[in-house]
Amino acid sequence: MAQQHLDPTDPAAGDATGDALAGYLRARATEFLRALRLHRESGAGAGNGSEETVDAARALRRSARRISGSLHTFRPLLDADWSEAIRPELAWLSGTLAMEHACAARLERLLLALHRLSGAPVLPAQSTGAGPRHAVAGAERASLTVGAAKAGALLDRQLTLARTRAHSTALQALGSSRFHAVADGIAVLASEVPLVPAAAGTGLRPLAAAAGERLDDAVTALPLVTAGHPYNAEALIHGLSPDPSPHPQDAPWHQVRLLLRLHRYAREVLHGGGPPDVRLLGAGRALDRHRDASEAATAAAQAARTPRIAPATAYALGVLHADQRHEVEAARFAFQQSWQQQTVGTP
Amino acid sequence: MAQQHLDPTDPAAGDATGDALAGYLRARATEFLRALRLHRESGAGAGNGSEETVDAARALRRSARRISGSLHTFRPLLDADWSEAIRPELAWLSGTLAMEHACAARLERLLLALHRLSGAPVLPAQSTGAGPRHAVAGAERASLTVGAAKAGALLDRQLTLARTRAHSTALQALGSSRFHAVADGIAVLASEVPLVPAAAGTGLRPLAAAAGERLDDAVTALPLVTAGHPYNAEALIHGLSPDPSPHPQDAPWHQVRLLLRLHRYAREVLHGGGPPDVRLLGAGRALDRHRDASEAATAAAQAARTPRIAPATAYALGVLHADQRHEVEAARFAFQQSWQQQTVGTP
Repeated sequence: MAQQHLDPTDPAAGDATGDALAGYLRARATEFLRALRLHRESGAGAGNGSEETVDAARALRRSARRISGSLHTFRPLLDADWSEAIRPELAWLSGTLAMEHACAARLERLLLALHRLSGAPVLPAQSTGAGPRHAVAGAERASLTVGAAKAGALLDRQLTLARTRAHSTALQALGSSRFHAVADGIAVLASEVPLVPAAAGTGLRPLAAAAGERLDDAVTALPLVTAGHPYNAEALIHGLSPDPSPHPQDAPWHQVRLLLRLHRYAREVLHGGGPPDVRLLGAGRALDRHRDASEAATAAAQAARTPRIAPATAYALGVLHADQRHEVEAARFAFQQSWQQQTVGTP
Repeated sequence: MAQQHLDPTDPAAGDATGDALAGYLRARATEFLRALRLHRESGAGAGNGSEETVDAARALRRSARRISGSLHTFRPLLDADWSEAIRPELAWLSGTLAMEHACAARLERLLLALHRLSGAPVLPAQSTGAGPRHAVAGAERASLTVGAAKAGALLDRQLTLARTRAHSTALQALGSSRFHAVADGIAVLASEVPLVPAAAGTGLRPLAAAAGERLDDAVTALPLVTAGHPYNAEALIHGLSPDPSPHPQDAPWHQVRLLLRLHRYAREVLHGGGPPDVRLLGAGRALDRHRDASEAATAAAQAARTPRIAPATAYALGVLHADQRHEVEAARFAFQQSWQQQTVGTP
């Protein structure tokens, strides 16, 4: 199945060797350095959360993920010491940079859900120039219950605090000597990729196919038959479990999300700048939604454990938690549908 | 479409006249009187909730609904004064008798859901001889959170109280002169059905078809396209609405449930003791589940408005409410699926 993903009829894919990998890594490294320059010029150090800073941070994460993923998939073609030293550093960097955005996105998701669950029409943020926080502030006047409004305010407080902390952590990270070592490593990569001597003539396909197979194996282990039955009520099965940790049932899906990403990057290395596989993108979006809903559900459950909240607030958070777990289930169904389509659609 | 439901190839259906209606009503009236005798003999008056009493009450409701429904569908064939006098009385009777059972079923549904949401394995009541209340009592020791356990206890208290009240009301009703007048009317029906003079030779099909058309019209007005998209998130759209009344979006579905029942009874009159249409049964079961989940969701929301409950209890009730609204959505999907099958499957 992995070989089908790689499209054996594509001549470029069959011919790609270590040279193609080197070209890909150089291009991503150049993107990384450009994003880093933009990030500094946008005044990120001054705590400025402008659109330019956000875009630059996204571009940094994007290239860091692709470099790290390619180093992993094509490991045997690269200098082992160098590659094994820089990979965890890139993971640390993209993880640290992702936190602030994740907090903001989680808050937005939860406030929009509170709004939707209150039956209030959701005003698109673009048309009013206001984000969901403003939309919910309007709804408080219009139709939010006391509980929903208080739950929104509590989540706003907690996630804004988490976001501020993540912002400081990211700034500290970007100013650290640890980060400068990563940036130096990427600067080297932009000019000279440390391939092993035999790599230039070695085909990339077997390693890319192995990444596809790891993905297929992980997907095969998912409960896809259940996920394909709408309203299977699996995702909420621990909705009131005394265990406060994230749902263990979500872990294999998160793992597939990462393997799908690695597979997608490997395709990029082989196929160059060709159009992305829309079906893989659909499956990936479903798993992003799965992850986001899973984390939002956890945030709602955690907020409900805040001491001395009103019962109406706790009730709204319970509805919200269940709603997000419902979203988790919907995302699994969506993944099953696009994955099904993928294997049926490929000859 | 209604004519398709009636199966025009069935010769018995085409020939059925007022005589068939009279036979059907006499048989239901006889069942009603037998159930009434069983109910009295089972010691229902002493507050006895034995299996015999429950079965007898169910049989009473069952025949009362069928008589009432047939009087409605085939109204022009029956003495108008008599029929218009007894129909609201039958509706009062079956409504009153249904309350106790509904409270018990609602409590069972909610306690099982709390159990399921706590990730505790649900022991089938049959194998242990214990009902869900006992199963949940066991789970309190095993794995229910404090919130889930308290929510269960609160629902148990409130719905058991409602059930006890419904039981008293039903007993009072069965001892009332109002009831004795109904029973006398049914006793007359068991021997002599008050048909209008022309009824004996009049075909039943046009009136039965009209019942089928009323059903079709009501189904057509349902948002079936939305319901057919899994995870459309419609049912929870007022999950946190400040309006505490039952969801207005449920009403058209409840209405279809009643019209489907009338259609089913009309088929019984025409087709006699033939096998029931399994697809109609499936659609009816989906709508029963819709009604039950809708009412259970309302009960959870109402329990959450109890003054001075703990936040953990309110949180569990919020999760439970959302879970039952999720069930409402699942039931609409199931109805859409069986209805689709029905219209596609019929030539």
